[in-house]
Amino acid sequence: MPSQMSPKTAARRPDRRELANAIRALSMDAVQAADSGHPGMPMGMADIAEVLWNDYLQHNPANPHWYDRDRFVLSNGHGSMLLYSLLHLTGYPLGMDEIRRFRQLGSKTPGHPERDPDLGIETTTGPLGQGLANAVGMALCEKILAAAFNRPGFEIVDHRTFVFLGDGCLMEGISHEACSLAGTLKLGKLKCFYDDNGISIDGKVSGWFSDDTAGRFEAYGWQVIRDVDGHDSAAIAGAIEACLADERPSLIICKTVIGYGAPNKQGSESTHGAALGVEEVAAARESLGWDAPPFEVPDDIAVAWNATERGALLERDWSNRFASYRAKYPELAGEFERRMAGELPARWAEGATEAIARIVAAGKDMATRKASLQALNVFAPLLPELVGGSADLTGSNLTRHEHSLAVTGDDASGNYIFFGVREFGMSAICNGIALHGGLIPYCGTFLTFSDYARNALRMAALMKVRNIFVYTHDSIGLGEDGPTHQPVEHLASLRIMPNMRVWRPCDAVETAIAWRDAIERTGGPTSLVLTRQGVPHQRRSDAQVAAVRRGGYVLHDPGTRPAIIFIATGSEVGLAMQAASALADEGTAASVVSMPCTDLFDAQPESYRRSVLPPATSARIAVEAGVGDLWWRYVGPTGRVVAMHGFGESAPAGDLFRHFGFTVENLLSVAKELLAE
Amino acid sequence: MPSQMSPKTAARRPDRRELANAIRALSMDAVQAADSGHPGMPMGMADIAEVLWNDYLQHNPANPHWYDRDRFVLSNGHGSMLLYSLLHLTGYPLGMDEIRRFRQLGSKTPGHPERDPDLGIETTTGPLGQGLANAVGMALCEKILAAAFNRPGFEIVDHRTFVFLGDGCLMEGISHEACSLAGTLKLGKLKCFYDDNGISIDGKVSGWFSDDTAGRFEAYGWQVIRDVDGHDSAAIAGAIEACLADERPSLIICKTVIGYGAPNKQGSESTHGAALGVEEVAAARESLGWDAPPFEVPDDIAVAWNATERGALLERDWSNRFASYRAKYPELAGEFERRMAGELPARWAEGATEAIARIVAAGKDMATRKASLQALNVFAPLLPELVGGSADLTGSNLTRHEHSLAVTGDDASGNYIFFGVREFGMSAICNGIALHGGLIPYCGTFLTFSDYARNALRMAALMKVRNIFVYTHDSIGLGEDGPTHQPVEHLASLRIMPNMRVWRPCDAVETAIAWRDAIERTGGPTSLVLTRQGVPHQRRSDAQVAAVRRGGYVLHDPGTRPAIIFIATGSEVGLAMQAASALADEGTAASVVSMPCTDLFDAQPESYRRSVLPPATSARIAVEAGVGDLWWRYVGPTGRVVAMHGFGESAPAGDLFRHFGFTVENLLSVAKELLAE
Repeated sequence: MPSQMSPKTAARRPDRRELANAIRALSMDAVQAADSGHPGMPMGMADIAEVLWNDYLQHNPANPHWYDRDRFVLSNGHGSMLLYSLLHLTGYPLGMDEIRRFRQLGSKTPGHPERDPDLGIETTTGPLGQGLANAVGMALCEKILAAAFNRPGFEIVDHRTFVFLGDGCLMEGISHEACSLAGTLKLGKLKCFYDDNGISIDGKVSGWFSDDTAGRFEAYGWQVIRDVDGHDSAAIAGAIEACLADERPSLIICKTVIGYGAPNKQGSESTHGAALGVEEVAAARESLGWDAPPFEVPDDIAVAWNATERGALLERDWSNRFASYRAKYPELAGEFERRMAGELPARWAEGATEAIARIVAAGKDMATRKASLQALNVFAPLLPELVGGSADLTGSNLTRHEHSLAVTGDDASGNYIFFGVREFGMSAICNGIALHGGLIPYCGTFLTFSDYARNALRMAALMKVRNIFVYTHDSIGLGEDGPTHQPVEHLASLRIMPNMRVWRPCDAVETAIAWRDAIERTGGPTSLVLTRQGVPHQRRSDAQVAAVRRGGYVLHDPGTRPAIIFIATGSEVGLAMQAASALADEGTAASVVSMPCTDLFDAQPESYRRSVLPPATSARIAVEAGVGDLWWRYVGPTGRVVAMHGFGESAPAGDLFRHFGFTVENLLSVAKELLAE
Repeated sequence: MPSQMSPKTAARRPDRRELANAIRALSMDAVQAADSGHPGMPMGMADIAEVLWNDYLQHNPANPHWYDRDRFVLSNGHGSMLLYSLLHLTGYPLGMDEIRRFRQLGSKTPGHPERDPDLGIETTTGPLGQGLANAVGMALCEKILAAAFNRPGFEIVDHRTFVFLGDGCLMEGISHEACSLAGTLKLGKLKCFYDDNGISIDGKVSGWFSDDTAGRFEAYGWQVIRDVDGHDSAAIAGAIEACLADERPSLIICKTVIGYGAPNKQGSESTHGAALGVEEVAAARESLGWDAPPFEVPDDIAVAWNATERGALLERDWSNRFASYRAKYPELAGEFERRMAGELPARWAEGATEAIARIVAAGKDMATRKASLQALNVFAPLLPELVGGSADLTGSNLTRHEHSLAVTGDDASGNYIFFGVREFGMSAICNGIALHGGLIPYCGTFLTFSDYARNALRMAALMKVRNIFVYTHDSIGLGEDGPTHQPVEHLASLRIMPNMRVWRPCDAVETAIAWRDAIERTGGPTSLVLTRQGVPHQRRSDAQVAAVRRGGYVLHDPGTRPAIIFIATGSEVGLAMQAASALADEGTAASVVSMPCTDLFDAQPESYRRSVLPPATSARIAVEAGVGDLWWRYVGPTGRVVAMHGFGESAPAGDLFRHFGFTVENLLSVAKELLAE
């Protein structure tokens, strides 16, 4: 690479095709060495990538964290070797040793790109369509931050989000949700390159994908640039110039040949998802005129690709501008840096503590969705970076707090996004906002419809991003809308998703603490699971208030060894408290454990867990208005789980709680049965 | 109703607006009585519904099972009172008492329509966009059956699928997936009415939904009829005539006023999801000129609506034609009736038993996805009603068997559907195929991407339809594609969905039996969870083969009381067998329980369950390459669960199994630790 080049080879500027062939060669070689991977897309999009990265992309390989870098998203993530080749060639810390270890355990070059902020990998992609939706979130975040921080003459937030995507992304429904909203919100700095190669895994797409994609995107209000020859560098450059000059989001439709350069396989699905084979790799080298050995890049080509110098200049220019900005707007500059660093405001901790203390003191009964709004109302003024919305259930999710202001296509100075009925798009867009940095996103829908977005939640958990999901109407307590709208398995299903933190608070105090935990958690997403219906305030000592963040704690201590323990969450905590009280009247000591967050409780030291669930008391009843399978772990084989065993029904909530056995009477009956054993 | 009418009132034919107002009045009244529901849509679409149902819809209220009836799908299912009103008024067995009990426990009029084949409710709707996708499946099913059964001069399968849908359906990504495919497959009998009222729950949709929807659907190859006044009966009729004359799927864009007739609230989101209030209902009565008391329909209007006579004629005409068809094609007619009745062929049971016996005898090692293909190859010739496909992973899911023939837009005589990269659409389309009747659908993708389709799986389970999901690449055994493609929580997450039967077979024998069970199950969907990688054949006695359908059984019986029990599924069964064998060599008796289907096992009598998991043996280890939370129920607090505790990694499968502890060595080490306790 640069340090090894000889003056002679450095003298000649390789032509564009040669530069692109470096991507093709590395991609073929890495896939061949792994005997696994996807050479077709990198070989097909190499020419486009070469023009974009060498001539247009504003980035600094020496500092992948530069705030105002252009974002690059590989939504067709199976073509990961394209991205790894680009990162390696332009000078990111991704050595040839890592390229050689493509798809091996512990390498930095896994099968699909995995978010790595130190390496220039902006998001994890592979599940199709989601990279595109993340990119919509990044472009939206840029627009909101630009509105908040730019000042006349100081465009300190001014970058593009470039996306590569394929037929698969465009077939997926999330592409509709995200791109439709991008059009409405006029995300003019979003620039997408469609790898229109006519091939997907099952073969020629015409048999299952015959959309007029250009017409479709024009219907979204996008600029569409048609029929660009994806192997003609001048045509690509022309299209990029045209898209950069347009104020709409852009789709550049590039006609390409999948596996371009593999003489016997190009244009066929056989290049998509498997190594080309030793012979075809050799034939492709011949056909491309690439005579360097595997995993070697000729010096002149390496030099021409290296972007560290250009990147340093780009960032330096920005830094100079930012320094002037800081001189003129010192507070804004400091605030911008704080937010981009993902740090909470200095006044946050104290303000949050005070707000929670006020909620404890007020001791009000209310639905936890209303408690969530109350928490937003007090936390939002402390957190200008908080931006949220709902999938067309604003008045039900209560996501629009007192300080909310709508973000529109013409004015991005707000903090509230009307996402429309687009749960999956919303969730993945919020992942993109979190990935971009500078804002903390939250988004709401009914808990049932977390189903629609499920893989975006998983991606948030996998990428470890701070994305807060507000899920109201958390059980049969939703009532009359019936079983389609009543979550039953969802709470358990969220809890078993690795790295998804799930809170189901029982009152306004636990709700505020759950919100605080979600905001302070930097290692992953949080789901806040909230009631539609009112729930009673629970009185707590200071120690109990402090124990909420342990995930589970003794809310009612009978003062003696409990004969029975109730474990409950959310709306069932009040029920358990009543049952314990009734048992006390009859002389039976019962404790009530409120367990709003099982994963936090599971992470407590054993001594704490044993103090909450003393082994000496084996008579335990878990009660939760959802499927109960996960609770056996806490009650043991001698316990009972009062839970849902099937779908709900359409009826007023009170009728349903009675119908399904969520009553004090039923709890007492189960308790007595258990105590009699 | 008819029986109560007086000759005088029956003499006058009410005008169309009066007929439509019956829907408006019933909808207002029912929502008001329940103090819950959605009056806006029924009041807005009443005029459209009146024209369609009174003049065009081919149905017979006295026989909702008539095979060649038109299908009507209310995709904007919150407007359920529209459908209940139509069913009541046209003569289905839905009395006024049920309308009065709207949204009450045990009524036939739940908050959202719930599939009821005896009542003319074709599908359960509410989760937006899915009714539309179901309808695409119904229209596709009709097209396939027409190709299979119609003969020159005998169009015995010839009906339309009509859909009502709203802005929400069109914002949802699934509308893109389903409608794009409907265009490609040229489903010309699909006719959709878009309630273009400009309002969604959050208010005027222009702030979050500014698509040129007409342009979008033209891009899908649909006929689009624009700017129809949804309150002008003549215009509506003209649009229907035009759409029936067109061979493309049709979108009729009807401009409507939400809550039409409520003078102070119409046109506003306030009519969408709440009762209008007593005063506004009264004002609406005034404004509409509707003076009948609540829940009463004037006789002349009731008579005009009643469709039992017209329906009887329509069905009689078809029955006569079918009788002629039967005379000419007796075998085809019998086959058609069998398939529409959902009965398996007479030769099925014997054929399936023989096929499974051959697989048992062959005793071959293979990946269970390959075993699934083998099962399809032997079962498909027995089952002409089997129709399947994949979301662009045909060669990976191995869903295309030897007797598969592609269904295309121009030729629907096949049995294989290339769904494209559309998991959610595919799953909901297959729900629609199952709902229509006459075909048994199956569809494949990677297990991870069941996430994309999750709510369609839930709807299948809720509606109790026979839909078979083929989920391959079921664990970290997927290997190099990495954590985005490796399911971890999915298996557990499917198991906790009510009424979803989940099989994770360990070899070719269990796979074939699982397929048979899925085909024979009429009460709900089945997920078949299959390996990418090879697994060893397990030898079984006849009794063990028979026990597979009990969901869990002793695969290895040490012949004495086991000191330890391994419980395993799928690819981990072979591992447990090896561990048991190694323990036997050391003189420790271990049994191995194969548990391919926990819900079938849970449904066994306690005596059987105790014979498989004898209480005397408390040393139990469950092993499964997924999250393990559900296994505590079977191993108890003194047991161990060898499972995944986080996301996977990108690496060859063998490396991953070692890395995550799925090795004989680790099982032995855990067993010894447990035995030492």
